Amino acid sequence: MVLGQARRRDVLPILGWARQYRAQTLANDSLAAVIVTIMLIPQSLAYALLAGLPPVVGLYASILPLIAYALFGTSRTLAVGPVAVVSLMTAAAVGQVAEQGTAGYLAAAIMLALLSGGILVLMGLFRLGFLANFLSHPVISGFITASGIIIAASQLKHILGVPAEGDNLLEVASSLLAHLGQINGPTVIIGVTATAFLFWVREGLAPLLERAGLPNRAAAMTAKAGPVLAVAVTIAFTAALRLDEQGVAIVGDVPGSLPPLAVPAFDLGLVQELIGPALLISIIGFVESISIAQTLAAKRRQRIDPDQELIALGAANLASGFSSGYPVTGGFARSAVNFDAGAETPAAGAFTAVGIALAALFLTPLLTFLPKATLAATIIVAVLSLVNISTVRETFRYSKADAAAMIATILVTLGAGVEAGVVTGVVLSILLFLYATSRPHMAIVGLVPGTEHFRNIDRHEVRCGQRVLTLRVDESLYFANARGLEDTIYDLVAANPNIEHFVLMCPAVNAIDASALESLEAINARLRDADVTFHLSEVKGPVMDRLERSHFLKNLTGNVFLSQFEAMKRLEHEAVIIPQGTLEKSYRHDSSYAKATETGKYDVMNSE
Amino acid sequence: MVLGQARRRDVLPILGWARQYRAQTLANDSLAAVIVTIMLIPQSLAYALLAGLPPVVGLYASILPLIAYALFGTSRTLAVGPVAVVSLMTAAAVGQVAEQGTAGYLAAAIMLALLSGGILVLMGLFRLGFLANFLSHPVISGFITASGIIIAASQLKHILGVPAEGDNLLEVASSLLAHLGQINGPTVIIGVTATAFLFWVREGLAPLLERAGLPNRAAAMTAKAGPVLAVAVTIAFTAALRLDEQGVAIVGDVPGSLPPLAVPAFDLGLVQELIGPALLISIIGFVESISIAQTLAAKRRQRIDPDQELIALGAANLASGFSSGYPVTGGFARSAVNFDAGAETPAAGAFTAVGIALAALFLTPLLTFLPKATLAATIIVAVLSLVNISTVRETFRYSKADAAAMIATILVTLGAGVEAGVVTGVVLSILLFLYATSRPHMAIVGLVPGTEHFRNIDRHEVRCGQRVLTLRVDESLYFANARGLEDTIYDLVAANPNIEHFVLMCPAVNAIDASALESLEAINARLRDADVTFHLSEVKGPVMDRLERSHFLKNLTGNVFLSQFEAMKRLEHEAVIIPQGTLEKSYRHDSSYAKATETGKYDVMNSE
Repeated sequence: MVLGQARRRDVLPILGWARQYRAQTLANDSLAAVIVTIMLIPQSLAYALLAGLPPVVGLYASILPLIAYALFGTSRTLAVGPVAVVSLMTAAAVGQVAEQGTAGYLAAAIMLALLSGGILVLMGLFRLGFLANFLSHPVISGFITASGIIIAASQLKHILGVPAEGDNLLEVASSLLAHLGQINGPTVIIGVTATAFLFWVREGLAPLLERAGLPNRAAAMTAKAGPVLAVAVTIAFTAALRLDEQGVAIVGDVPGSLPPLAVPAFDLGLVQELIGPALLISIIGFVESISIAQTLAAKRRQRIDPDQELIALGAANLASGFSSGYPVTGGFARSAVNFDAGAETPAAGAFTAVGIALAALFLTPLLTFLPKATLAATIIVAVLSLVNISTVRETFRYSKADAAAMIATILVTLGAGVEAGVVTGVVLSILLFLYATSRPHMAIVGLVPGTEHFRNIDRHEVRCGQRVLTLRVDESLYFANARGLEDTIYDLVAANPNIEHFVLMCPAVNAIDASALESLEAINARLRDADVTFHLSEVKGPVMDRLERSHFLKNLTGNVFLSQFEAMKRLEHEAVIIPQGTLEKSYRHDSSYAKATETGKYDVMNSE
Repeated sequence: MVLGQARRRDVLPILGWARQYRAQTLANDSLAAVIVTIMLIPQSLAYALLAGLPPVVGLYASILPLIAYALFGTSRTLAVGPVAVVSLMTAAAVGQVAEQGTAGYLAAAIMLALLSGGILVLMGLFRLGFLANFLSHPVISGFITASGIIIAASQLKHILGVPAEGDNLLEVASSLLAHLGQINGPTVIIGVTATAFLFWVREGLAPLLERAGLPNRAAAMTAKAGPVLAVAVTIAFTAALRLDEQGVAIVGDVPGSLPPLAVPAFDLGLVQELIGPALLISIIGFVESISIAQTLAAKRRQRIDPDQELIALGAANLASGFSSGYPVTGGFARSAVNFDAGAETPAAGAFTAVGIALAALFLTPLLTFLPKATLAATIIVAVLSLVNISTVRETFRYSKADAAAMIATILVTLGAGVEAGVVTGVVLSILLFLYATSRPHMAIVGLVPGTEHFRNIDRHEVRCGQRVLTLRVDESLYFANARGLEDTIYDLVAANPNIEHFVLMCPAVNAIDASALESLEAINARLRDADVTFHLSEVKGPVMDRLERSHFLKNLTGNVFLSQFEAMKRLEHEAVIIPQGTLEKSYRHDSSYAKATETGKYDVMNSE
């Protein structure tokens, strides 16, 4: 029996929950929507800035995509929209094909959203969600940490009021250093104050409100409005003191309007340049989104359908592209707030979209004097929570290979940018996995006296026959380890000229591919030339089914035993069992073996 | 205990065998050398032609490289020199950086030999021989078959006497068709006759000689001289009738000399262009050579040290590069002949080198009138034995994934050339392996009555508890399958609301990486939220050692049981055992399950 990941599939999950929509649900969803809207307005402006786009594009990307996700998504509480990492990846991708500030730059960002949407929908239709599994946890974790550092560093230019550019830490840092003489005083004051204020809001405000008598949850929710307060206060100061005339960079005039709907011009050259980055953005965005969705769904015993999520995120990105937005995905912080604020259905997301639409229509004139330094402060405080260096140490303790993949991802992302970082991490983690499986754990085993169990002769007190040598291999046999198995067996047989039977014990062999089959056939033939009979034991059902489709079993000089104990019982009649100490191993690490021999604890098996 | 591939390592294996060199060994080695020399002269000329080089370069590549291998190699009988597949790869690589017939072309071929030599030596020193394991058997087999077809097709131009070019079958075929009107009559007569003669020599001469009274082995050896006969006869005809004036392409004047020793000019741009092809040539050449060496060594119970072989082949290629040669490796046919002719030590190779040196000094004037069509006939007859289409069918029957990798390698090699073919094959076989391990076999298991064994409930008559659900997963847990495991477990738990204990049975789990650890922690936390206790059973020693380095065991809500039977005994006290039919599975494929339920054969375990 193979357990697939088959699941009930609703093309429009909205048909499920909309039928049971009640007044209380409406009230809960609306409250959550208000709180998320307040949080989303400054965030969407800031992330658009991070992506190198006009801030209003962030608002545009927070309207139709939310409606699209509400229609197709299976998560009840995921809050879709612009997020930090995808915005950074957008800046890196679009920056390679167009100059920031030009019409071409916006057009490329829109095309990126459309491509990403198309890729996600196709992945969903063809059930390719498993591709995201090749992003290992250490790679994602390292990538997010490094992205957080780059994003924070890239925002320093807005805090300091100097021009600086770059897609990786080196570029950003050197660009910042080069312009350090041009620091703008009023900008620094706004930027540093806003950053300090937001850090304090994050750490100190909620406890303060609680001590002031507010309930826990209300205190936490109120604290989420901190960025809005920072935005309002710095707008007021900047407008009153005309700080823009002192060199403080501001958002400037933004036309109050709903996002312009348009089908962008199709430019094949642009598509070719952006398709690679679009694929990476799609997969990273999907992984980020699905993790959040599953974490929140588990808390309420709800289900997430990964393939349907691909379609929903694809629809959201297509909606973003057709309404002058840029790539979006599910955001961690906003989704958690949405969940905590009591959102019950995706309708909360649709209500948030209405809130942002109203903001786009009526609030934009108020944003003229919004200092970019305030938005930068919002971003810095948000992304530093993504940076988690301590997991490197924990991962290192558990697995050096995983830690290596994580560190490589961090360093390459910091040094060469997001795309190179992700690709390096994925390739390295695959190579390390292949390397590990190409050098499988193998052990010569003997019988644990008084039982039917066979154990590693180096770890346990066991008994072996002199003429029967049993090797257990703890890995599926495939091309990367087949030749190594051959070498090991030839060496063992050459070093133990007395043996008459060689048993390969396969309880952990889950598959044998064509290369390994070829190796088994070669082993069988060469052992036959050496007058050694070749046996298998404890071969699993599915592996045996497959072996029966080859000539191997017909040519096998020995037998396939259901259990190793049976193999020992049968072969023991032909082989006098003697102390295991006379066995020779041809490889290193035989100190433990020598010890076992000295103690002389391996008796003749027959004497039992 | 980990079995490394550690082995006694002699830097100069010659010191081992030279000390025991006797007169009889000398006689045997000399005889083998004479036979191999006779075989190698036409082959080396022909393969140089295949590589697009002057034929004499083939002789140059058959002198010093053989001496170098005799010094460093661990195979007693491997015959190193120009071979078909590496010659084809040389033509493809060098053809991209220089025009055939120019001095730059030869310089690039020499540089390729040096680069390949350097790469092989480095791989040997850093013990990177395992890299060759990633060339799976189906990929190598497909690649060799496709190369054989391309080589044979590319030689048709010499048989027909028309110009034609190309690195893949499409290019070669269309080029041939375009020039079909320019067929040269005398060339076709020589080419077709030589080909037919060599096929007959190969299939019919040895039996004929045996019937004439020659011993088996002598008959087979004599038949190997067939190409020399073809060369001599066609030279005589061409010279006598001055067929070169009739348009028959001949080798032309060749200066009789030993290979000019030289340190080639170092051109960084050239190195950068050739380093990729050099790596592929090195790995393909190594794999081809080591397979032959191991096959022959096994017949006489000798050992091959793969890392030392890398150094020896590297030295051979460096020697080739410094003596105006091109990339070389161990050749299958010549090595087999060397072995059959009785070669006992690598000295046979050194004697062959002397033979070729004499040929280069004194024989070259005789080669002026050698028709290229004769060399092409030699190549065609030699490479068609490499073509083996029937293995595709056999492989397909055993494993569709392996067959897919093989077919892709063949098609891409034929359609797009050798480099694209190998790379496609390697990447595809790795992806298919990852895909297979990303969808592991999993089974819900129950107790086989009267035993301590647990088996798949879909395959066996077993007993289960209503409140204990046990899932066995037959694969190491790592990033590519960790999320799938999570999904399966959540679905099972959601579909079976009565269960109180969930046991993950891990007898075939050989490793748990950081991503899978993260998934196990998530499973533990989410099952705890659902009031289900999470247990593990039959965790292997090395896996357990590693888990103890994490926080997982501390947070685990349940236990880790040494055996599944122990788990059942312990948890059974807490759970009433009821007919297994009441279990629900949330996935498809439950027809077999429904059947088992209908028969009602699962009794209450306690009633036993």
